[in-house]
Amino acid sequence: MKNLLDAYRRGELTAEEVEERLMRMLYNEGEDFLLDLHRSKRIGFPEVIFAEGKSPEQLVSATKSLFERNGHVFISTIDDTKERLLREELPGAEMKKAGRLMVIKRQGPHPEALGCVGIITAGTADAPYAQECALILEELGADVIKAFDFGASGMHRPLLGLKKARGADILIIFAGMDGVLPTLMASLTDQPIIAVPTPIGYGYGGEGVAALSTMLQCCVPGVMVVNIGNTVGAAGAAIRILKAMKRGRLDQARTA
Amino acid sequence: MKNLLDAYRRGELTAEEVEERLMRMLYNEGEDFLLDLHRSKRIGFPEVIFAEGKSPEQLVSATKSLFERNGHVFISTIDDTKERLLREELPGAEMKKAGRLMVIKRQGPHPEALGCVGIITAGTADAPYAQECALILEELGADVIKAFDFGASGMHRPLLGLKKARGADILIIFAGMDGVLPTLMASLTDQPIIAVPTPIGYGYGGEGVAALSTMLQCCVPGVMVVNIGNTVGAAGAAIRILKAMKRGRLDQARTA
Amino acid sequence: MKNLLDAYRRGELTAEEVEERLMRMLYNEGEDFLLDLHRSKRIGFPEVIFAEGKSPEQLVSATKSLFERNGHVFISTIDDTKERLLREELPGAEMKKAGRLMVIKRQGPHPEALGCVGIITAGTADAPYAQECALILEELGADVIKAFDFGASGMHRPLLGLKKARGADILIIFAGMDGVLPTLMASLTDQPIIAVPTPIGYGYGGEGVAALSTMLQCCVPGVMVVNIGNTVGAAGAAIRILKAMKRGRLDQARTA
Amino acid sequence: MKNLLDAYRRGELTAEEVEERLMRMLYNEGEDFLLDLHRSKRIGFPEVIFAEGKSPEQLVSATKSLFERNGHVFISTIDDTKERLLREELPGAEMKKAGRLMVIKRQGPHPEALGCVGIITAGTADAPYAQECALILEELGADVIKAFDFGASGMHRPLLGLKKARGADILIIFAGMDGVLPTLMASLTDQPIIAVPTPIGYGYGGEGVAALSTMLQCCVPGVMVVNIGNTVGAAGAAIRILKAMKRGRLDQARTA
Amino acid sequence: MKNLLDAYRRGELTAEEVEERLMRMLYNEGEDFLLDLHRSKRIGFPEVIFAEGKSPEQLVSATKSLFERNGHVFISTIDDTKERLLREELPGAEMKKAGRLMVIKRQGPHPEALGCVGIITAGTADAPYAQECALILEELGADVIKAFDFGASGMHRPLLGLKKARGADILIIFAGMDGVLPTLMASLTDQPIIAVPTPIGYGYGGEGVAALSTMLQCCVPGVMVVNIGNTVGAAGAAIRILKAMKRGRLDQARTA
Amino acid sequence: MKNLLDAYRRGELTAEEVEERLMRMLYNEGEDFLLDLHRSKRIGFPEVIFAEGKSPEQLVSATKSLFERNGHVFISTIDDTKERLLREELPGAEMKKAGRLMVIKRQGPHPEALGCVGIITAGTADAPYAQECALILEELGADVIKAFDFGASGMHRPLLGLKKARGADILIIFAGMDGVLPTLMASLTDQPIIAVPTPIGYGYGGEGVAALSTMLQCCVPGVMVVNIGNTVGAAGAAIRILKAMKRGRLDQARTA
Amino acid sequence: MKNLLDAYRRGELTAEEVEERLMRMLYNEGEDFLLDLHRSKRIGFPEVIFAEGKSPEQLVSATKSLFERNGHVFISTIDDTKERLLREELPGAEMKKAGRLMVIKRQGPHPEALGCVGIITAGTADAPYAQECALILEELGADVIKAFDFGASGMHRPLLGLKKARGADILIIFAGMDGVLPTLMASLTDQPIIAVPTPIGYGYGGEGVAALSTMLQCCVPGVMVVNIGNTVGAAGAAIRILKAMKRGRLDQARTA
Amino acid sequence: MKNLLDAYRRGELTAEEVEERLMRMLYNEGEDFLLDLHRSKRIGFPEVIFAEGKSPEQLVSATKSLFERNGHVFISTIDDTKERLLREELPGAEMKKAGRLMVIKRQGPHPEALGCVGIITAGTADAPYAQECALILEELGADVIKAFDFGASGMHRPLLGLKKARGADILIIFAGMDGVLPTLMASLTDQPIIAVPTPIGYGYGGEGVAALSTMLQCCVPGVMVVNIGNTVGAAGAAIRILKAMKRGRLDQARTA
Repeated sequence: MKNLLDAYRRGELTAEEVEERLMRMLYNEGEDFLLDLHRSKRIGFPEVIFAEGKSPEQLVSATKSLFERNGHVFISTIDDTKERLLREELPGAEMKKAGRLMVIKRQGPHPEALGCVGIITAGTADAPYAQECALILEELGADVIKAFDFGASGMHRPLLGLKKARGADILIIFAGMDGVLPTLMASLTDQPIIAVPTPIGYGYGGEGVAALSTMLQCCVPGVMVVNIGNTVGAAGAAIRILKAMKRGRLDQARTA
Repeated sequence: MKNLLDAYRRGELTAEEVEERLMRMLYNEGEDFLLDLHRSKRIGFPEVIFAEGKSPEQLVSATKSLFERNGHVFISTIDDTKERLLREELPGAEMKKAGRLMVIKRQGPHPEALGCVGIITAGTADAPYAQECALILEELGADVIKAFDFGASGMHRPLLGLKKARGADILIIFAGMDGVLPTLMASLTDQPIIAVPTPIGYGYGGEGVAALSTMLQCCVPGVMVVNIGNTVGAAGAAIRILKAMKRGRLDQARTA
Repeated sequence: MKNLLDAYRRGELTAEEVEERLMRMLYNEGEDFLLDLHRSKRIGFPEVIFAEGKSPEQLVSATKSLFERNGHVFISTIDDTKERLLREELPGAEMKKAGRLMVIKRQGPHPEALGCVGIITAGTADAPYAQECALILEELGADVIKAFDFGASGMHRPLLGLKKARGADILIIFAGMDGVLPTLMASLTDQPIIAVPTPIGYGYGGEGVAALSTMLQCCVPGVMVVNIGNTVGAAGAAIRILKAMKRGRLDQARTA
Repeated sequence: MKNLLDAYRRGELTAEEVEERLMRMLYNEGEDFLLDLHRSKRIGFPEVIFAEGKSPEQLVSATKSLFERNGHVFISTIDDTKERLLREELPGAEMKKAGRLMVIKRQGPHPEALGCVGIITAGTADAPYAQECALILEELGADVIKAFDFGASGMHRPLLGLKKARGADILIIFAGMDGVLPTLMASLTDQPIIAVPTPIGYGYGGEGVAALSTMLQCCVPGVMVVNIGNTVGAAGAAIRILKAMKRGRLDQARTA
Repeated sequence: MKNLLDAYRRGELTAEEVEERLMRMLYNEGEDFLLDLHRSKRIGFPEVIFAEGKSPEQLVSATKSLFERNGHVFISTIDDTKERLLREELPGAEMKKAGRLMVIKRQGPHPEALGCVGIITAGTADAPYAQECALILEELGADVIKAFDFGASGMHRPLLGLKKARGADILIIFAGMDGVLPTLMASLTDQPIIAVPTPIGYGYGGEGVAALSTMLQCCVPGVMVVNIGNTVGAAGAAIRILKAMKRGRLDQARTA
Repeated sequence: MKNLLDAYRRGELTAEEVEERLMRMLYNEGEDFLLDLHRSKRIGFPEVIFAEGKSPEQLVSATKSLFERNGHVFISTIDDTKERLLREELPGAEMKKAGRLMVIKRQGPHPEALGCVGIITAGTADAPYAQECALILEELGADVIKAFDFGASGMHRPLLGLKKARGADILIIFAGMDGVLPTLMASLTDQPIIAVPTPIGYGYGGEGVAALSTMLQCCVPGVMVVNIGNTVGAAGAAIRILKAMKRGRLDQARTA
Repeated sequence: MKNLLDAYRRGELTAEEVEERLMRMLYNEGEDFLLDLHRSKRIGFPEVIFAEGKSPEQLVSATKSLFERNGHVFISTIDDTKERLLREELPGAEMKKAGRLMVIKRQGPHPEALGCVGIITAGTADAPYAQECALILEELGADVIKAFDFGASGMHRPLLGLKKARGADILIIFAGMDGVLPTLMASLTDQPIIAVPTPIGYGYGGEGVAALSTMLQCCVPGVMVVNIGNTVGAAGAAIRILKAMKRGRLDQARTA
Repeated sequence: MKNLLDAYRRGELTAEEVEERLMRMLYNEGEDFLLDLHRSKRIGFPEVIFAEGKSPEQLVSATKSLFERNGHVFISTIDDTKERLLREELPGAEMKKAGRLMVIKRQGPHPEALGCVGIITAGTADAPYAQECALILEELGADVIKAFDFGASGMHRPLLGLKKARGADILIIFAGMDGVLPTLMASLTDQPIIAVPTPIGYGYGGEGVAALSTMLQCCVPGVMVVNIGNTVGAAGAAIRILKAMKRGRLDQARTA
């Protein structure tokens, strides 16, 4: 662009010509341009590699490339063979695993603190999903309170679960089968609630379908839902809320 | 048959001929026969006239014919026009109505007592369905405890509802939308529970579909389900259980 | 609480202060409290361990812990490997198996008698489901009459099935494919009927979906339905009814 | 073609030229040609005018045109307004109506006899569908035995229904809700059975969906199904079978 | 019964007593009785053993028992292991196999001739289903014309298929994916048509669902449908029609 | 309770007796008790009266009762007749309406400020739903930025919509038909996003079903979904988040 | 921008400052900017106003505004009342209507010719949908060949339909019920085929669902599908293809 | 036919007799005839062998036969074992593979050029489907521009993808999960767009169902859809369009 401007100053181009060339330049590269302009506004959540369906070589290559760029890689739907392979290929890296989710990173400073998420499950079968979600959140700077197996068989269990998660900024509630736990909890607290149906259950409404429909039909206002088994999406939603809370506090601090 | 036997005695027929004629007779009339043999074993629940889709004349005619035979007629899915018509056509009869269900009967002795049913609804929108069910049960001799609008928004409501229906032999629980109330109550009592999804709710899982799937996926064992809005079926199921309980008591009394 | 009261008696606390402290105590521990208060009112059906999805270690650990507490453990969806493992790990215990359900218990007194359940299947393919249900019921004190393969191909078979189960307090009917058997039987008896669709059948309405819809649309009032293949739920429902019947008889005995 | 041949005879065209011109002619008009060739082999069932969605003028015009050509018109899904209009527009014609189906024809000779169809319904609500089917069949020459309201509530009813239709060559069975009647009857007779689900029933599997799935999952081999409420299709299927039977008899008579 | 009659003749019983005892006898054994009375009227189609889900021992035992009773056994959904086992266990029997269906029989007289069925498939993938159906029909006495792979890609193929099956009394048409072949053929012939959707196809409407819905929505009247992949049902339906045709011819012969 | 304590002080009751009586009292009234204990922790969102299905009298009565208790009533799914009636019955109250939602309140102080919500719609057909949501939020103290009709036809529109709502703490995005707007926006901002499918669209996936499934399958992590047309639920979810943000700020202020 | 450049020439701004200001300007207005840059590349299909759900005033206002801007307005799902209103409000404009679609325009030059589309329907019930599509295409410059009611009942009809549309560049085929026509035609021509399911048909697969699934499962490669009843989408797709063809010809002409 | 004509010339047959014999000949062989007449008008897309479900022998046999006839064979859904086998069996042939699609051909002249197709995928998981489609297109003479992984996470990616495919005559866009990419691109270009949902995604709307519904509900007119994973269908559709474009250009060249 400097060249364009100098040519203008030297009188080699008219203002119209400069404008037209700028347009053409923008037309040809406008998107990359926009990309840069918007980069700082992007979604603030890391890319997650979906391992299922990738060959071992593809996975290793994608992981290494992301690891070099970011030093912090999230991989979902990983199996034992692929996990073993990655441990061999990236011997120096720190690795954590929960459910079928794996985190690989360089030892380094802790992420900046973001607030606290209460992760509650109805049953033990929901735990692997909840663990995946918890690992992502912790890696991104959130505190996590885990309250597993506090489902609805007996009214006191949900109450105990809520008490355990009383200090959390947000609740993420995992439930399969009839999926009633988010309704119950929403009736007892005003914390933001993200409900995650898990693919537990068989027969009519099995594989999480009944839980999903229960959560979408929730008779207490304010329950937000992500897809069946979508642990990454639930974590992403929580991070968005925690960041908004933090921004709010920073604004307040700044204006104070 | 007397004729057959006499012909045999008189030697006009051989034993084989008598047997063969009896067979033919049974073959031709076996079903009516069976009908008589089994009549006393039948289902013990009155025929219910389905008004929707019947012309006013058809309804009046069917009602009168049943009224004359039984003195006690149940009509479901009735509307105001048809109700008015029946009131004109059967001026002397006693009439009761709940929801879209109507009972027409001769003044007469009360039915024999059958036991007690607790009818609980999650919301006020479920009440018309519950009222239909209650009316049928009362007409057939059951006591009914009504606990309406004890749904799950707040944990204390279901507890109060259960307390109110503590003395019932059976609970019938009506719920639409997310349909969580039967799960909750099943976790707190060992009473038999019949769950009735009501066609309340919109969007995904609306019209009672989410409630049905929640109830079928119930994570507490022992909840029995009837179809969406099936008040007659729920009443029929309760009557079967109450009769079995009564038979049990009579057996005990007899053997005591 | 004794301390609180003594402090009150000694005048160290006012009545208001005692009340407030009691409240705070209840608020903090109210749920455990409620748990105790309600324990005797709970659902009267044992916890069933769902083996599928648990690792062998998790299953052994959960089984041993429940075995030590209750001396009577129910495990569903078990496979051969896990069964073998449990037999090794709990060598002294008595073990029974039906379908994919296993019962492990200490030799001990028989459960108190509860009444009689007729278990009927339409075909031989339904038998493993029915056997699971029968084993649970027998373990919990019910008598079981088995009438397997009395499905509807030919009208006489259902009649024979009903005759066999004539003495039962409740019928549990298992059917896959078209699921017509409960309708048929409901038209011939006034016994309570719990219908269990089994995941038998292929093509449109396969995997038990047609059977479920047939049962929910049953044109004879009074059939109660549980989810496809839900043998534990059917047993739980029957136990609830048998207990209600027993309570009724005890009440009668007491008032006699 | 005569011209072509004469030109050939006169030597104006070679055999190759004739062949080529015939090909071209066939290519251009081959379809109309085929149409004529095949006309005698066509489906042997009259066109049925679908009234719903047609304007009154369109319906009158289509009806008159078909009436003039065939003297025998079938109209389905007709309502009162359109019926009245047609009665005014075609004053001399003979008219019959059943359900929402109407037949308009010139007085004339009876159709040739085709055999006998037994039309059975489970309930009274199925009758309008059955009546439509019966009217079509009678108009096309079949004898019809009607056995309405012989559904499954009580085992003797289906038996009586079957006895009534014993002499029929084919059975057409109409049932809504749980749709169990065809299964039952198929287990008791070896007559060909066409099952017609009717859009009766509400809630899960309502509008005939449960009946359709029951019939498709029928555990007795040999039940043939048409779509929900498809009275015209059922009649068409029966006519095909009756014609095949008649052809068989004619063949036999010819070879005798 | 002879005893009863003699006692009556000897005056040891009154007519009333004889009647009462007969009633009691019928009540207790009425169903077996009915069974005998109706046996000759039964469905005229052999029992088919469903191999899937049966253990090898169960299958061998069921097969042997049926083989001894009937000398003619049909087994569906068989796999290679079970086939090998049966060949070892029943070394002297004649065996045939098509698709996953197996027939085992004693050498003996051919079945009585029943008429002719045209079996047409749209593609080669439909052939195994068609072969199963053909084998059953041939075993039960029908002639079969096979016209495989005459699907709709190009209009001439269906025409050739129809020409090949011109002499058949009934057509059974197998098609997966879009399932258009029955519609096409129904528009060109007046033969009875049984349409069998096959579980061919993927994505939306895959596994035969699109084919089923096409066939049920068929815009030419008279196509009869069985469930997806239901080769046994299609054969059963054809046998019912062929038997009705034969009865018709016999009646004609008798009255001639 | 004061009485109990005094009786203890006077020595009329032992500590055990006091404890036992307290237990009994709690057992009998524990739920009301819990109710009070938890009341302050409840969900912080007003009850919304669902007008549809209520008679005019029922609606007026429910509205008046809630109006007297709270001075602030929310009514959803209201129609013109009922609106007119309420305006007559509550002449002094302030009334607002958006879509089918109505707010009735006493003139009084404004609610405490809660933060800011950006409400974005894809099309003009989504506006009535968005307006309902906006009205609830404003009534409860939130600022609302409205950006309607910024759907995806052209990439620049969503960008402009985002820019307009840049200052919001949360975005609520309404879209029907293909429902792609939330995916698009989630890829461009890290604000919390609540997606609301609207019942716009016809054919396959119509009535909001396609939009719902698009939103649940969103390929950018962090989109939270409520049911089709659930404007009240979306508002409730936003309020929960805004309150959590406010609590966070208050905590910070307190600790500062 | 001229100002910026002049300030630069005058030395008031450095090149860096100019670049920075341009960036900021682009960031703030980048979208409108992009909009202009891309406008010429946009989709080349007019906005269509969806009348359903709009109030009469909203419709008039939207129509007038679009009419003033473009002089050519398309309105879909219009009813008689709204049509009458628009005719009153825009008295000078030329108006055309087909099905529920209306075109309003200034008298002016014809659109540039675009090529030819063959529009074929299976039945008469599909005609209103086809007419809508034809009107849009004609208004945008396409020639249209209409071949209505050439459905599959009889093989010769589709052949005649194809012959009629032989000269078309693209075929759009409308079919409801079983939707087999596109399959048939795709097997006989290599023209591009856009299949439009219409919401014709009832029962299972009714409302166009069976037609949609047939078309998506089409066993002949190359059929492209739009949603049920989506006449606007089909026209849009055809226009895209015709424009691509024209571009191709222009390129050719230019290089020739 | 020559014989016929000569017999006519010799006067051995009248014109009527010749005509009649020609008719009879056409009737008997009309279809093969039509086949020849129409062959040149057929669909212009090769037969594709579906490997799945074929035995290795069947596949080899079908492949060899097609290879001998055409020298160019396409096989879909192939696995490694079958691929290896074919490589052994056809050692001299040229072989290419993409995804699960394989092409086998004789070395020979390149196909005639057809135009250019842009193939765009949303994610890397869509690539194998896109590769299959690209291979078919290239084999049939089309140029292919590949733009993989240009999905919607960030607005600039779709823009870059579009720019890359700017020169293409047609776009084929592959997307799973939420399937938003075709909507986005349709709003930015007027190129013809064929959208292919891929079976990527889990939970509600998984396996490509959400993507399919998004594409069918596309709010920008003109997107054409094929079934989930239907790479062959998408290629077939593109070939039809490219051929139509080529015909257009040839016509233009001819008339120029």
